[in-house]
Amino acid sequence: MTMSTQKHNGIISPEVLLQQLRWRYAVKKFDVTRKIPADIWHALEKTLVLSPSSFGLQPWKFIVVQDPALRERLLPVSWKQSQIVDASHLVAFAHKKDMNAHDVERYVKHTAKVREIPAESLEGYKQLMLGFVGRAGKGFDINDWAARQLYIALGNFLTASAVLGIDTCPIEGIDPKQYDEILGLDKQGYHVVFVAAAGYRSKEDASAAHPKVRYAHEDVVEYR
Amino acid sequence: MTMSTQKHNGIISPEVLLQQLRWRYAVKKFDVTRKIPADIWHALEKTLVLSPSSFGLQPWKFIVVQDPALRERLLPVSWKQSQIVDASHLVAFAHKKDMNAHDVERYVKHTAKVREIPAESLEGYKQLMLGFVGRAGKGFDINDWAARQLYIALGNFLTASAVLGIDTCPIEGIDPKQYDEILGLDKQGYHVVFVAAAGYRSKEDASAAHPKVRYAHEDVVEYR
Repeated sequence: MTMSTQKHNGIISPEVLLQQLRWRYAVKKFDVTRKIPADIWHALEKTLVLSPSSFGLQPWKFIVVQDPALRERLLPVSWKQSQIVDASHLVAFAHKKDMNAHDVERYVKHTAKVREIPAESLEGYKQLMLGFVGRAGKGFDINDWAARQLYIALGNFLTASAVLGIDTCPIEGIDPKQYDEILGLDKQGYHVVFVAAAGYRSKEDASAAHPKVRYAHEDVVEYR
Repeated sequence: MTMSTQKHNGIISPEVLLQQLRWRYAVKKFDVTRKIPADIWHALEKTLVLSPSSFGLQPWKFIVVQDPALRERLLPVSWKQSQIVDASHLVAFAHKKDMNAHDVERYVKHTAKVREIPAESLEGYKQLMLGFVGRAGKGFDINDWAARQLYIALGNFLTASAVLGIDTCPIEGIDPKQYDEILGLDKQGYHVVFVAAAGYRSKEDASAAHPKVRYAHEDVVEYR
């Protein structure tokens, strides 16, 4: 086993990374008195913005629900899970519905601007993406594809939170249509798939002490 | 703005996290001469094992393709993308097909064993999960659900790699059926959805210098 005894490029050691991933769990009960400091929350928003996506198309919006009254309204359409109202922060992950050629055009224009190159130089990539979105409806569910990208952002968000010492709970058990309506996303052409609560675990959350349940390494990782 | 000037629980600062996420990009050309040290790779495998999933059901396997001959065989069914053969490591993300009551039983048994509690005490949770998998086929595509969970593992893997200073490239452009056959997963009841290559960027990868293309924060993050 080649040990990386030399200083490597990474910022944290493998041991510390794993310690944080083991520390992470789906919080059942948040400490209602603790708020995530603004600079840390801002970094977590940036983490969402920086999430990778297929083609880089970013078919999403992240809705930070700050208004306590609005969070109370979301509670009954979230199986009354207390994290919705108790957590310091709540983010709804929404994808754009029916991504199409217009979205590709927008992305190509934006890429040309950011990279300070002519849009024409991206023609090959553009055609590739147009071909991709053009398959929508022909045995290809582009809304499902967009939803999958949201899960990349979720994995990124949960891990980033863990290495910053922030607790989280991803929640799929919501009524997405009610969310769309309450958050006014239906009119914008977006659709919520799940939410994530973030903050600090309560000392009263007994589940924090439960050993993490994972299948054995050899049952999940195989070699070829 | 409340600044977290006090030492927080996290392991890295928000600034360093964002620096690593900005450093990350989808590598087009890997350095074929550099291998990820064994201890770091082992941590990345553990990262995959520790990935969160809906209900904790872990409907997945992660296939590390080590055999160079096998990676050569995967090249033509991966649009000949060089990362398949050039990267230090290659992982195929596969989900179990048609998750059902049997998988719930297995998970409940495993949970009871790990937590050293009677399986009976998990009856409520078990019924909830049985109800969930029982909806399969009735307007609910459980294979799509399982595929989505793989994207959580991907987001986790990409971010974990970034904070360890390891380069990656997620690749959706593959022929999944060919992968299933070549890796012998079809017989095991698993299905590959995408792969991720990991290693070190080549100095010749011009795309490493391209500015990252993301929509503006205010276009992607909204408040309610």
